[in-house]
Amino acid sequence: MSVGSQAPGVSLVQQAIDAVAAHIRVSQLKVGDTLPGEGHFASQLGVSRAVMREAFGALAALRLIDVGNGRKPRVAAIDGAVFAASLDHGISTAQISVADVWDVRRSIEVRTAALAAENRSDAQAAAIGALVDRMAEEVDDHAPTDHDIALHILIAEASGNALFVAIVRSFEPLMQVAVPEAWQTRVTDEQRETMITRHRALADAIAARDPAAARVAMDSHFDSSVGMQLRQR
Amino acid sequence: MSVGSQAPGVSLVQQAIDAVAAHIRVSQLKVGDTLPGEGHFASQLGVSRAVMREAFGALAALRLIDVGNGRKPRVAAIDGAVFAASLDHGISTAQISVADVWDVRRSIEVRTAALAAENRSDAQAAAIGALVDRMAEEVDDHAPTDHDIALHILIAEASGNALFVAIVRSFEPLMQVAVPEAWQTRVTDEQRETMITRHRALADAIAARDPAAARVAMDSHFDSSVGMQLRQR
Repeated sequence: MSVGSQAPGVSLVQQAIDAVAAHIRVSQLKVGDTLPGEGHFASQLGVSRAVMREAFGALAALRLIDVGNGRKPRVAAIDGAVFAASLDHGISTAQISVADVWDVRRSIEVRTAALAAENRSDAQAAAIGALVDRMAEEVDDHAPTDHDIALHILIAEASGNALFVAIVRSFEPLMQVAVPEAWQTRVTDEQRETMITRHRALADAIAARDPAAARVAMDSHFDSSVGMQLRQR
Repeated sequence: MSVGSQAPGVSLVQQAIDAVAAHIRVSQLKVGDTLPGEGHFASQLGVSRAVMREAFGALAALRLIDVGNGRKPRVAAIDGAVFAASLDHGISTAQISVADVWDVRRSIEVRTAALAAENRSDAQAAAIGALVDRMAEEVDDHAPTDHDIALHILIAEASGNALFVAIVRSFEPLMQVAVPEAWQTRVTDEQRETMITRHRALADAIAARDPAAARVAMDSHFDSSVGMQLRQR
């Protein structure tokens, strides 16, 4: 298992990263399972502990493993944090715009709405409906940003596809900024009521197991709420 | 700019990572711009070079910066490698299935096809058409995997949204496995001809600036080529 036989163009650290990923795959490890420590891999691969330490740092940065102080490293869950870092970097360096991210978000979430209508459990449908109730109750108090974000994540979870969940979670930092901004533009009671009505239609379509209606409801949600906001930028 | 004043729950390395990301944002750096070295940040932030080295390693793993031997670190382009690592990890640890990824891929690529029809340059339309020509010419020789992958990336580039490009690029490692497998299932000349015809319809719709036709062509491409393959798993 020595890494010396690999292509010379690949750095020792990258070879060590690949070896740990291969160990996870071959051993069929699952989320939360523990991995051998740096010392074990260092001696098995014939690399220094410094190289192995860098490799573990990169694996932790990529959220493939969780490393804590003194604890054994564990296999990590995909959670959107890595996607979120890329989105943040892409926007801050002008490689992509917020409108670009919102176009991706719409493509993804129109699908999560339809899948949620197909796959949601009764508990998930109830939780989605309850969140819209809470948005409606608090409509006069403040921008219900946290409820709005939670609703989109719940819908992704109800889709039954964990990759959609990770992607939708990655939008959360941007939504923390954008949702209150969008809310500011809804100055009349009527505008705010319309926003609640659209979320309600989405929750109802998911509860009714109606994928076509859920798709349309999510699409028109993006047209109205998000589209309006982006045109103002 | 000392990091000592930040929340105590956040590790020194994470604070150093955040400080570099903040430097990129505040200085409005673009892809390829150079960053100060580890020593500069270490003294400015009041942390050890070891901490700064770990932070740079994490930033390089996340593809926010490029670091080479002896060269100054540079701002990196978003390129899909980070998404690809998450997909690979998610599949190898059974958090997601290949079918889950393909559902995300379809949601994304139906949109890139429509956007490409709206936004493609004449050169992009010509390149997309030429690739389908080459697929057709080599249809008897071997599975035209590289052309197929290149076609999907070209369409994403023609969409004009760099985030779609990064996401579509992240599917490449999976396509390197899945496209030849799909090709194996197309045993008759007629089946292979149908596959070329579907790609041709996609290229033609993009050339004709017809987003609705491009969307339909990509959708039926997924229905036939990819759907058939997934049902066989």
